[in-house]
Amino acid sequence: MATFADIATSALINLLSSFLFLLAFSVLRLQPQNARVFYPKWYIKGVRKPSRQTGGHKRLSLSHYVNLDYKAYLRLLSWMWDAILMPEEELIEHAGLDSAVFLRIFLLGLKIFSPMAGLGFLILLPINATDNNLQFKMAKNPNNPSFSDVDKLSISNVQDKSPRLWAHLLMTYIFTIWTCKMLYMEYKAVANMRLHFLATKKRSPDQFTILVRQVPPDPKRSVFTTVEDFFKSNTPDYLLAQIACIQIVYDANRLGKTLDKISRMENWLNYYQNKFDRHPLKRPIKKKGFLGLWGEEVDAINYYKTEIERMKIEAGKEQDEVMSDPKSIMPSAFVSFKSRWSAAVCAQTHQTRNPNKWITEWAPEVRDVYWPSLAIPYLSLTMRNVGMGVALFFLIFFFMIPVLAVQSLANLDGIVKKFTFIKPLVEMPAVKSFLQGFMAGLALRIFVALLPMILMFMSRFEGHLSRSALDRRAATKLYYFMVVNVFFGSVITGSLIEQLWAIINSPSIANILKNLGYLIPMKATFFITFIMVDGWAGVSMEIVRVYALVIYHLKNMFLVKTEKDRDEAMAPGNLLLNENIPRLELYFLLGIVYSVTTPIILPFIMVFFAFGYLAYRNQVINVYDPDYDSGAAFWPHVHGRIIVAMIIEQLTLIGLFTIKGPVGFAQTDVRNKSLSAATFMKEMLSSTPFLVALPIGTMIFHVYCKKRFRAAFQFYPMVEANEKDRQEEKDTPDLDLQKYLDKSYLHPVLKEEQEVQGRFRTVKTLRRRSKDLEEVESGSDDEGGRHLGLEGDLPAAHLEELEAVPYTPPYDSQISKSSELLLDPSHRHPHLKSDGSSSKLYYDSLPTSSSSRSSNQRE
Amino acid sequence: MATFADIATSALINLLSSFLFLLAFSVLRLQPQNARVFYPKWYIKGVRKPSRQTGGHKRLSLSHYVNLDYKAYLRLLSWMWDAILMPEEELIEHAGLDSAVFLRIFLLGLKIFSPMAGLGFLILLPINATDNNLQFKMAKNPNNPSFSDVDKLSISNVQDKSPRLWAHLLMTYIFTIWTCKMLYMEYKAVANMRLHFLATKKRSPDQFTILVRQVPPDPKRSVFTTVEDFFKSNTPDYLLAQIACIQIVYDANRLGKTLDKISRMENWLNYYQNKFDRHPLKRPIKKKGFLGLWGEEVDAINYYKTEIERMKIEAGKEQDEVMSDPKSIMPSAFVSFKSRWSAAVCAQTHQTRNPNKWITEWAPEVRDVYWPSLAIPYLSLTMRNVGMGVALFFLIFFFMIPVLAVQSLANLDGIVKKFTFIKPLVEMPAVKSFLQGFMAGLALRIFVALLPMILMFMSRFEGHLSRSALDRRAATKLYYFMVVNVFFGSVITGSLIEQLWAIINSPSIANILKNLGYLIPMKATFFITFIMVDGWAGVSMEIVRVYALVIYHLKNMFLVKTEKDRDEAMAPGNLLLNENIPRLELYFLLGIVYSVTTPIILPFIMVFFAFGYLAYRNQVINVYDPDYDSGAAFWPHVHGRIIVAMIIEQLTLIGLFTIKGPVGFAQTDVRNKSLSAATFMKEMLSSTPFLVALPIGTMIFHVYCKKRFRAAFQFYPMVEANEKDRQEEKDTPDLDLQKYLDKSYLHPVLKEEQEVQGRFRTVKTLRRRSKDLEEVESGSDDEGGRHLGLEGDLPAAHLEELEAVPYTPPYDSQISKSSELLLDPSHRHPHLKSDGSSSKLYYDSLPTSSSSRSSNQRE
Repeated sequence: MATFADIATSALINLLSSFLFLLAFSVLRLQPQNARVFYPKWYIKGVRKPSRQTGGHKRLSLSHYVNLDYKAYLRLLSWMWDAILMPEEELIEHAGLDSAVFLRIFLLGLKIFSPMAGLGFLILLPINATDNNLQFKMAKNPNNPSFSDVDKLSISNVQDKSPRLWAHLLMTYIFTIWTCKMLYMEYKAVANMRLHFLATKKRSPDQFTILVRQVPPDPKRSVFTTVEDFFKSNTPDYLLAQIACIQIVYDANRLGKTLDKISRMENWLNYYQNKFDRHPLKRPIKKKGFLGLWGEEVDAINYYKTEIERMKIEAGKEQDEVMSDPKSIMPSAFVSFKSRWSAAVCAQTHQTRNPNKWITEWAPEVRDVYWPSLAIPYLSLTMRNVGMGVALFFLIFFFMIPVLAVQSLANLDGIVKKFTFIKPLVEMPAVKSFLQGFMAGLALRIFVALLPMILMFMSRFEGHLSRSALDRRAATKLYYFMVVNVFFGSVITGSLIEQLWAIINSPSIANILKNLGYLIPMKATFFITFIMVDGWAGVSMEIVRVYALVIYHLKNMFLVKTEKDRDEAMAPGNLLLNENIPRLELYFLLGIVYSVTTPIILPFIMVFFAFGYLAYRNQVINVYDPDYDSGAAFWPHVHGRIIVAMIIEQLTLIGLFTIKGPVGFAQTDVRNKSLSAATFMKEMLSSTPFLVALPIGTMIFHVYCKKRFRAAFQFYPMVEANEKDRQEEKDTPDLDLQKYLDKSYLHPVLKEEQEVQGRFRTVKTLRRRSKDLEEVESGSDDEGGRHLGLEGDLPAAHLEELEAVPYTPPYDSQISKSSELLLDPSHRHPHLKSDGSSSKLYYDSLPTSSSSRSSNQRE
Repeated sequence: MATFADIATSALINLLSSFLFLLAFSVLRLQPQNARVFYPKWYIKGVRKPSRQTGGHKRLSLSHYVNLDYKAYLRLLSWMWDAILMPEEELIEHAGLDSAVFLRIFLLGLKIFSPMAGLGFLILLPINATDNNLQFKMAKNPNNPSFSDVDKLSISNVQDKSPRLWAHLLMTYIFTIWTCKMLYMEYKAVANMRLHFLATKKRSPDQFTILVRQVPPDPKRSVFTTVEDFFKSNTPDYLLAQIACIQIVYDANRLGKTLDKISRMENWLNYYQNKFDRHPLKRPIKKKGFLGLWGEEVDAINYYKTEIERMKIEAGKEQDEVMSDPKSIMPSAFVSFKSRWSAAVCAQTHQTRNPNKWITEWAPEVRDVYWPSLAIPYLSLTMRNVGMGVALFFLIFFFMIPVLAVQSLANLDGIVKKFTFIKPLVEMPAVKSFLQGFMAGLALRIFVALLPMILMFMSRFEGHLSRSALDRRAATKLYYFMVVNVFFGSVITGSLIEQLWAIINSPSIANILKNLGYLIPMKATFFITFIMVDGWAGVSMEIVRVYALVIYHLKNMFLVKTEKDRDEAMAPGNLLLNENIPRLELYFLLGIVYSVTTPIILPFIMVFFAFGYLAYRNQVINVYDPDYDSGAAFWPHVHGRIIVAMIIEQLTLIGLFTIKGPVGFAQTDVRNKSLSAATFMKEMLSSTPFLVALPIGTMIFHVYCKKRFRAAFQFYPMVEANEKDRQEEKDTPDLDLQKYLDKSYLHPVLKEEQEVQGRFRTVKTLRRRSKDLEEVESGSDDEGGRHLGLEGDLPAAHLEELEAVPYTPPYDSQISKSSELLLDPSHRHPHLKSDGSSSKLYYDSLPTSSSSRSSNQRE
C-alpha cells in the first residue's frame, strides 16, 4: 500500500508536470502565431486586431513566427496577475454572468474547504494519528487487508468506542453548519448578482417576448391567424394594444443541415484551392467514394465547385418549402409585447382551461434558443422524459457491461491472432506491456470521452428549448453518472449491478450504510491519486489548449486564405458547463465526504480549486466566447448537488458511527450481517440520534434556500419589469420597439438566408423573395406609423371623433379601432389569404393592405 | 374459521339491521317534531316554514307530536326516490358542487367495481374454486393454519406455478386499465364540472380579490399605507386604476373566543330562564365552581345576566383594541380589483425579488376563509409543516402504544379491585363477558373517535388559509393513518413499529413484498366483516342521525324559546369531508387490492357504495348545509389516493406472483428468507416483467392526469376571467363593484359586531363607532362616484381638459389623476394620520377628504 513517500513523490511529479505545462503555456502564448489560440476573445471583441494583411503564404520574417522581444519573456508569468486582478464587475461585463459565477464555484470550494482543512489538521489528524486501531487489528489478524499511511491518519485508526470519536462527531456538525452557511451566502450572492444582472441588462428581445406553444390546429386558419385571433378575442384591450408582433416558428432543421453541408464543402474547396495555389502545376484530385478513400477520381476543385452550386440550388428550394409549406410551421409562436410588464403577465399566467393548449412561457434569449427542440411535438415530451429517465438509469448502472465486453473482445492476443504480421513487434516486452496497459483502459477511455456527447444527445431528445437548459440537464446526468460510477464505483468492490440487486435484496438498508461507512474511508489514497491525475493534470491540459492549438495551426496551414477565414479558424469554444460543472461537483463530493474521516485529502482538493480558478479565469478572460448567457441559471443545480454530497456524507457517517459507536455504545461487527431488528434498533437509538438530525437539518436547509432564492432563477418579478419599463420610457421615449423586436425570433437559418446569403438562391427564388422584401420594406416605412400610433402622439382630431362615442373611455375605443386595423383578417395581404400560408410575420402582414395592389400589378 | 354459512348469517343480520334502521328513519322522518332534524336544509332555504308560532311549552294536540296521516305511511320509502331522482344539475344548484362531486365518488366505486365483480365471478372464482391447493397443503401439513371458505375462492387455492395463474395476471391488467379509464373519465368530468361551475358561478367577492401576504413591516407607515404605496409605485397605471379596495386583516381571534363564550352563556341563561318559566316557584340556582359541580351557590339567572353584561363590555373593549392596536393588524391585506382578469394577473404573478415578501394568491371564498390562520406568521409555516410531518409519522406508527397502555391500565380486574362494591355485579357471567369485550375496545374506540379532531388540529396548526384546504389536509392524514393502521395493521401480525424496523432491517425489501402478497389474501374474511360492520352499519347510523336527533330534542326541551332559537338548534351539520373522503378511499383500497386475489369481496363493497350513495344523497338534499363550496377542489386528492391504492395492489401482486410464479417459473418458499441476490434476480426476471410494467404505467398515467387536469384545480384561466368580465360588463353595465366588494373580507367577528351586535358595545365605544359609520355611509354616497368615475360615463368636459396634455393618452392621465385622488395619503382621514392606525378600509379612507372637517366640527 501507498506510503507517504509514494504520495509525496506522486504529488511532486504531478506538480512539476503541471508547472511545466504552465511554463509551456506562458511561452507559447507569447508567440505571435498562437495569439488567436490563446487570446481569441480579444479578437472577437475587436480589441486585438490582425497585425498585418497577410493574403497568401509568402515567407515572412522570423519575428512573424517567434516572439523575439526578450522583455516579454521577463514577464513570463504576468498572465496570472492579469487573470486574477480583473475585478468581478469588469469580468461580468467582459465575459457574462455565467462565466463569472462559474468561477465563483472554485472560490466557494476554497471558502468551504480552507477552514475545514485547518480544523482537520489541527484537531482531527492528531487525534487519528495518536491512536493505534490499525496496528492493533494488524496484530490481531495478520491476514487483514494491509493499510496505507493515509489510513493511519484517518478515522480508521481510532479504536472503536473510543471517546476520541466525540471529536469527529462534533466536527461533523461544525463542518455541516459551515458548509450550509457558505452555501447560503453564495446562493444569496448569486441570486442578487442574477437579479442585478437582469435589472441592468440592456434591452434584449427576450425581455419582451413570450413563447406560445400548443396553438390548437385549425384546418381553416393558419397558425398566425389563430394566435392573432386568440389574443384578439381573449385579452383585455389594454394588453392587446401592447402586442408588438407575432413571429411564428418554422421547422428549418433540414435547411440548417444543408447549409452546414455547404459550409463544410466550401472548406474543402478552400483547402484544394490553397493546395493548387501553392503547387500550380498539379491539379488536386479526390476520390468520390467514402471518406475520399476510394471511388472514381475527379478534379477536386471542379467537383466541389459544382457540388456547392448544386447544394445551393437545393438549399434555395428547401428554403422556399420551409416558408411556404404549412407542415414546416410549428404550432408555436413568439409573441412580443411593447412592455416587459405585459410580457411578464402573459408568461406567468395560465391562459385556458386545457393546460395542454396555449402554453405561455418566457422566450429564451435569442442566441440561447435551441431551434431543433421547437420542432418536437409538445405532447411527446412527457414520454420522451420518461424514456430518457429509464435510459439514464440503465446507462448509469449498466455502463460497465459494454465497456467490459469490448475490453474482453479487444484483448491483445485476439488481435495478434488475426493480424499475425504484427506478432514480432508485439512480442517485444516493452511494447507488449505498454500495449496491454493501454488497451486495457482504451475501451473505457473511449466510452468516457463519448459520455458527454451521449448525455447531451439524451438531453436534446428530451426537447428542452434552450441551450442553457440542455447544458444543465446534461450536467445533472453526468453528475449522477459520476457519483455512481466514479465515486461509488471506486468504493464498492464488485460490479455495480450486483450491488444494486444487493441493495434491493440486501440483509438490510442499514447494513448497506454500514458497509459504506466502513469502505469509504479506506479509499482515501485512491482518491488522492485521482485528484492529482484527473484534477491537476486536467486543468493543465485545459490551459495549454493542446487540441485547439493543433487544429488551429492545421486549419491555418490548409484552409485559411483571408483574415475572415482566420477568425473562423479560431474556435474559441466555451465553458462547456455540461462537463465542467459536474466535474467540480464531484470534487465537492470528495471533499465533503472525506472532510471528517480523512481530512488529509482536503489540501489536494484545495490545490485543485486554486489552480483551477487561476486557469479558468485566464481562459474566461482570454479565450472562451460563450454561446449564451443564462444569467447563472445553473446555480440552483450546483447548490442542489452540493446538498446531495452532504447527504451522502452524513449517511456514510451514520453508517460509520453505527459500527464504531462513540463512548459506551454497543459494538457490532460489520460482517455480522444478520442483525436482528431489536439489536439494530438498540444500536440506532444509541448512536444515531446524534447524527440523524444532520440529514434532516440539511434537507430543511435546502428547502429553505429553495423557498428563499429559487424564485430569482424562475420568475421575473413584476415590480422589476415595471421599473425597467418606466426607466426605459424615460431614457428613450422615441424608441421604436416594434421595429426593434421584429424578426428577432426568426429561425437563424432563415435570417441568415434572407440577410446574408442571398447568393444561395436560384434566380427564380431570388426574384420572388426580393420582391417580398421590397414590399415589406416599403410597407413598414409607409404604414408602420399607423399601427404604432398608440405609443406616440395622438392628434387632437382623434379625440374629437371619439367624443361622439358615449360610455366608452376614449383610450379603449382608440384601441379597439386600431386593433381592428391591426388584427382584422380582411386587411391582410391577399397573397396570404389565398394560399392559406401564414408564414408571414405580423409586422409583414400589416402594411400590405395598401401595398398589395401595387405588388399585384407588378406581378 | 368462518364458513360461508357464518358469512351469510352475518350478512343477513347486518342487512336486516340496516333495513330496520332505514325503516326507523322512514317513520321518524314523518313525525312533525323531527322535521328540523331530517329536513333542516329546506328550512334554511326557506322552502319549509315553521307551521305554527309556538311561543312557550303549552300542551299541544297529539298531531303536533305524531304524524296521524296514514297516507304518509303508505309512501314510507318514497324518500328513496326523492333522493335518487333529483337531477345532478339541480343538486349542484341546491347543495353545491362539493356535495355533488362527493356523491360521484360512490358512483365511481360502482362503476369501477361492477364490471370487476362480473369478470371476477365469471372467470376468477371458478378458476380458484376448482383447484385444490389448500386441501393439498392441509393434507401435507395438518398443522398449517386452517383456512376459511372464502380462502377456497381466493387465489390461495390455486396451486403454485399453475397455468391458471395466467388468468389472474391477465385480469390484473384488465382491471388496472379499466380503473385507469374510469379514473380518467371521472377526472375529466369533474374538471369540466368545476370549470363550468366556476364559469357560471354568480358574482362573488373572491373572484375579484387577492390576498397579499408578507407585507414588509414599516415602522413609519401602517400596513394599509404600505400596500397602497406598493401598488401605486409598482404597477402600471392600467392595473392601478383597476384596484377597487384594500382591506387589511385583523387578528380578532381573541374577540372571537369572547363572543363564543357569550353565546354559550346566553344558552345557559335561556336554559335557566325556561326552567324558571316552567316552575315559577323555584328560582334556579347554580354552583360557581368547576362544571357547576361544586362551589358557592348563586341565583343562576342573575349570575348569567351579570356575567353576560360584563363579558359584553369586555368584548366591546377588545373590539376597540383590535381596531386600534397596530399589533392586531396582520401584515396581510385583501386587495380587490374591478375585474377578474386583473385579479388573476396579480394572483398568478410574482411581485418582487424576495419570494418571501409581497406574496400574492387568490383569496379563498369569503365563508371558506379560516380566519385564525391569517394570524400565523408566514415564516413559521415551513417549520410548522415539518413539525407536523414528524408528528404525523409518530402518530401513525406509534398510535397503538398509548392505546395499548391505556387498555392494560383500564382492565376490568384493576377496576374491580378499586371499586369493590361493583364486584357482585361484575361477577355475573353475562355482564362480565360483555364488559370485558366492551372495555377491551373502549380505549381504542375513544382514541379513534378523537382522531379526526387531532388530525384537524394538526392541519390547523399548519396554517392553511381556507376551511376546504384544512379538510383536504386532514383527509390526507386520515387516509394514510387508515392505510397503515387499519389496512396494514390488520394484515400484518405483530405491532406496527416492529414491522417498521423490520422494513428498514428486513431480510430484503422484496421479502416484505412477498410477505404482503402472501398475507393479504388470507385476510379477506376479516375485511368482509369489516365492510359490513363499519361500512353498512356506518351508513345506517348516518341516515338516522341519532346524535343530532337526541341533541335537537334536548335543546328543544331546555333552550328553545323562539323560532329563531329553534332554527339555531337544528345544526344541520355538513358533509365532514375530512372524515368521509378517506373512509371512501379506504373502501377503494380494499376493493382494488382484493379485486384479483379474492373477488368475492367486491359485492360487499358494491352494496356499501350503493347504500351509501342512497343515504348520502338523501342527507345532501335534506340535511347538510355546507360551510363552504370549494368547487370540488378535493378531487385531485381522491384521484391520487386511488392511485396509491392501485400501486399498493400492484406491489402486493408482484410479491404474490414472485411466490406463486405462473407456469414454469421457479418456485420458492416464502419462509426461506435468506434468498441470495442471484436467486432473487432470477426470480424477479422470470415473473416480474409481466407485472412491473403496471406500477410504472400507473405512475405515468397519474402524471399524465395531473398534467392534463390538475390546472383546473389550481388556476383560474385568464381567458375565462376575461370572458366573464366581458359578459358581466354587458349584462350589468351599471354595477357598482366598489360598493359590492367593500368590507367583503372584514373579519366576520368584526362584521357581526358592526352590523348586528351593536348592543354589546359600551356607550362610549358605541358613540364613536356609530359616528364612524355615519361618515362611511355619507362619504360613500357623496363621493363614491368620484373614484368610481372611471367605470361609468365620462363627461365630455373631461375630455376637453385632457386634450391640453400632450403625448400622454387621455386615459392614462385620467387614471393618474384619479389614482392620486385615490391614493395620495394627504387626502386621507386626519384621524388615521394622527394615530397611525391603519385599521380603516380603503373605501373608508377615500371619501373622508371632504367629510373629515364636518366630523371634526361635530366632535
